[in-house]
Amino acid sequence: LRVGVIGLGLIGGSVALAARERLGAHVTGFDASPEARERALARGAVDAIAPDVAGAVADADVVWVATPVGALPAAVAASLDAAGSATVVTDVGSTKRRIVAAVEDQRFVGGHPLAGAETAGIDNARADLFAGATWYLTPTERTSGILFERLHRAIVGLGAQPAAIDAAQHDAVLAAVSHLPHVVANVLVSGAAQALAAEDVRVPAAGPSFRDATRVAGASNAIWRDIYLANADALIDRIDDAIARLRDVRVALAAADGDRIAAWNDAAAGDRRALLEAQLAGGELHELRVSVPNEPGVIARIALALGRAGVNITDMALYPTADATSGLVALWIAGAEPAARAQELLGELGHPVARA
Amino acid sequence: LRVGVIGLGLIGGSVALAARERLGAHVTGFDASPEARERALARGAVDAIAPDVAGAVADADVVWVATPVGALPAAVAASLDAAGSATVVTDVGSTKRRIVAAVEDQRFVGGHPLAGAETAGIDNARADLFAGATWYLTPTERTSGILFERLHRAIVGLGAQPAAIDAAQHDAVLAAVSHLPHVVANVLVSGAAQALAAEDVRVPAAGPSFRDATRVAGASNAIWRDIYLANADALIDRIDDAIARLRDVRVALAAADGDRIAAWNDAAAGDRRALLEAQLAGGELHELRVSVPNEPGVIARIALALGRAGVNITDMALYPTADATSGLVALWIAGAEPAARAQELLGELGHPVARA
Repeated sequence: LRVGVIGLGLIGGSVALAARERLGAHVTGFDASPEARERALARGAVDAIAPDVAGAVADADVVWVATPVGALPAAVAASLDAAGSATVVTDVGSTKRRIVAAVEDQRFVGGHPLAGAETAGIDNARADLFAGATWYLTPTERTSGILFERLHRAIVGLGAQPAAIDAAQHDAVLAAVSHLPHVVANVLVSGAAQALAAEDVRVPAAGPSFRDATRVAGASNAIWRDIYLANADALIDRIDDAIARLRDVRVALAAADGDRIAAWNDAAAGDRRALLEAQLAGGELHELRVSVPNEPGVIARIALALGRAGVNITDMALYPTADATSGLVALWIAGAEPAARAQELLGELGHPVARA
Repeated sequence: LRVGVIGLGLIGGSVALAARERLGAHVTGFDASPEARERALARGAVDAIAPDVAGAVADADVVWVATPVGALPAAVAASLDAAGSATVVTDVGSTKRRIVAAVEDQRFVGGHPLAGAETAGIDNARADLFAGATWYLTPTERTSGILFERLHRAIVGLGAQPAAIDAAQHDAVLAAVSHLPHVVANVLVSGAAQALAAEDVRVPAAGPSFRDATRVAGASNAIWRDIYLANADALIDRIDDAIARLRDVRVALAAADGDRIAAWNDAAAGDRRALLEAQLAGGELHELRVSVPNEPGVIARIALALGRAGVNITDMALYPTADATSGLVALWIAGAEPAARAQELLGELGHPVARA
């Protein structure tokens, strides 16, 4: 496997290291910063450094574009310009609607690994950064099934768990589970600083709830300024929801309504339990063999339908028939219940399914 | 040392274990629940179980009342009724204004250890629960200096760091660094559950920022219902502040104002750094010897003045003169800079200070 990596920071550097160590790939890298290029070579993250994007992409089977969100559109366009017709190009940006809407190319699949929030830079890169992490992929009707499958397998090879999701849903979900928590961490830390100053108190040590809730406060502007701007509308929806919920608690507190406070707190406990349970699905692997026609978008539809239902595709393989009019997709699903659910969903999509 | 503990849950049980193991104290306990009494004996947390509050308090030098916040006023009153004139009685409630205002007794000192938020019950109690933890004390003008000093030393003996603070300031600070983070955790988890349901997505795994920010969501109503109600006004102030800050971010997002977003995020980074630095003060111990007149409230005033300035009293000893008209207070302060600051503040209070 030949891999190109554009942008050799924490994520790009970790992709490069993992591709070399875990996939045995030949990795060519490029970064606009001479220092990052030098460090990537010195760390053994890449086999070679190219003088530009085109050089890193030229012979690659898979290209990861791992620049900050603001620089993505240009870097993805340059990569697709230089890449061959059988190259899959993906990105690692934290928001997906803009880039997916901007790129009309069957070779492009949006991506976003949930890893690496705490540090930055090539020096913190490591081959196991993605071990066990969810890696969102946002295929569309345009996406080539063959290229999607290749990317999916490569990401499994990096140690991550790919999950297909619609780009708009991705951004709405991430606004709720990542971008709003970052905003709230900033609000808590600045509110507490102001409260302590107003009370003329230097607090000797805050409790664990404050430390946990504010760990990501003031996250790097090099990354987060662009994320906030790129997902502003979805984030505004979640901020409005949070304000409405805070107002509800305020009303109950002002009325000293203990029953309502308790019910509100119980509901949160139930929501937390439900979210945790949804994340803990797992179990032994089941193989499903799905017959599919050779038509655009069919792999994306399958992946998205299963992703939407929370069914995790642990691994995936595509076997075209000799005449290329149709093919067989093998899917490995963890857990008996998710596998049964997958079989049902695939049936609803009109695809014959066999259990291997 | 003879210790009485009323309420043998996580905190009371841990105080009892630590008092036996670390202070070599004789501990008598009481709990309204027969099961908790039995478990406390079986775990060796107490030397003896009393049949009622009066029995646990009768011969004690120090009494900890560790019931839930709602049951505190009655349990503290019963303890003071049964305790001798040389017994110090303290509580461990998470809010302090109500109980301090309700109890007009020189033998009572409000207390609140910042520990043990994640679990509950005597079975989770442990002798090192308070090791290194901040333990707020809220002495008033009424508080006996001799009894405050005894309690302060006992808490140092449990492994904690006592910090004196005015009860109203305590509640305002805790609203900002504990109660609001709990409210916000509930808001985040219920908002995310609703967003995922609306998008018809089961998220395979949330990112680390969400896990951290929602760890305390849906905390036990047995404890938190009363905390929210007892500190409702201070918490409402912080909720209003949070709503105003969320609105400010919303305006910047709606205007796609990247510079304002970046400045807001930088300010949060600065606030976080300042809060962390304030918590990391430490260093070698310095001993200050302070001459004080024997009059009510003097120890409380000293402890509060240092607590307000963020100066941590690592240990404390009181030496009355033979005629009891005045005395010497020895204070141990960690770090050269805080010790110098303490000397300055004590001078401002009109007390002669010598460095030992």
